[in-house]
Amino acid sequence: MDTKKRKEIVPIHDEVERAVRKSGVKEGFAFVSAMHITSSVFVNDNESGLWQDILKWLEEVAPEKSDYEHHRTGETNADAHLKRLAMGHQVMLPITGGVLDLGPWEKVFYGEFDGQRRKRVIIKVFGE
Amino acid sequence: MDTKKRKEIVPIHDEVERAVRKSGVKEGFAFVSAMHITSSVFVNDNESGLWQDILKWLEEVAPEKSDYEHHRTGETNADAHLKRLAMGHQVMLPITGGVLDLGPWEKVFYGEFDGQRRKRVIIKVFGE
Amino acid sequence: MDTKKRKEIVPIHDEVERAVRKSGVKEGFAFVSAMHITSSVFVNDNESGLWQDILKWLEEVAPEKSDYEHHRTGETNADAHLKRLAMGHQVMLPITGGVLDLGPWEKVFYGEFDGQRRKRVIIKVFGE
Repeated sequence: MDTKKRKEIVPIHDEVERAVRKSGVKEGFAFVSAMHITSSVFVNDNESGLWQDILKWLEEVAPEKSDYEHHRTGETNADAHLKRLAMGHQVMLPITGGVLDLGPWEKVFYGEFDGQRRKRVIIKVFGE
Repeated sequence: MDTKKRKEIVPIHDEVERAVRKSGVKEGFAFVSAMHITSSVFVNDNESGLWQDILKWLEEVAPEKSDYEHHRTGETNADAHLKRLAMGHQVMLPITGGVLDLGPWEKVFYGEFDGQRRKRVIIKVFGE
Repeated sequence: MDTKKRKEIVPIHDEVERAVRKSGVKEGFAFVSAMHITSSVFVNDNESGLWQDILKWLEEVAPEKSDYEHHRTGETNADAHLKRLAMGHQVMLPITGGVLDLGPWEKVFYGEFDGQRRKRVIIKVFGE
């Protein structure tokens, strides 16, 4: 996936549902995990106002600033590493009867905190 | 489960142990996940003072306030969504020899941040 | 594992890779979880400056202080419980073709927030 902004929340629920259908798994799990250490995978509400709240909140919890030790390496994205840790980077989605067995409002999202680069998410479906 | 207060921590360890026994699984995992996007499932200490510390801490980390974007939808619970993200909403509990293979103090809890409604947790046991 | 300091980040990636090789699993997962409720298992960057940033950040997010309710029990480590909750305590690492299927910078670490005691991590590899 290509992200357009430095910080962005991207819905990936449909891709996960497609992977579940394609797998033919009836009883099991879809594992979804960010392969980049400055991004997150999480389950929450499909509401764009809330996504803005999440990004604003993360800026308070783990602000962009210049004096991180990590920046001695030449990187400038320590805040993005911390944001990922606060949010978590992977989820397991249960599958029952061939479909995702989630609550009525649970949707899967990718959270990018150091984007504008090509990014990957791994989806692994297992079960029977 | 019915929660009595808006914010509450509820022990669910016994229910999970019962599900493991009932499943007959000897080697595998119990997956436990909150089906509501304003609540959490987590593993920590069975000590009520700590539960109070957790709720107080979450109020500092992600406070109730009126000016969240999410509230334009008519909802007033954006803080509960953020609290869930900070705490995580699911755990995998390893099973060895037919019982939960946890550290001596590890117990499973449900954290409700927008309660007084009927809430559901999914428990899925898998393995052999 | 023995931790030398109260708060410390310990690389455990090699141990996990060894367990995967030893298991012979080609397609599956390595589950890694802290068995102590004041410690964390997480995936991030193998860069010691960032580890310092993480520990400093956790001190801001969940500071050591005396007035936690949990301390009425005689314990003095409520902050370590909160740090673990903020960071998460377990990860699933996908295995494809017999090796860990991670992003280029993803490495596994143990985060200890109340150390100088003997600590355990459970590694459970499953699949085919």
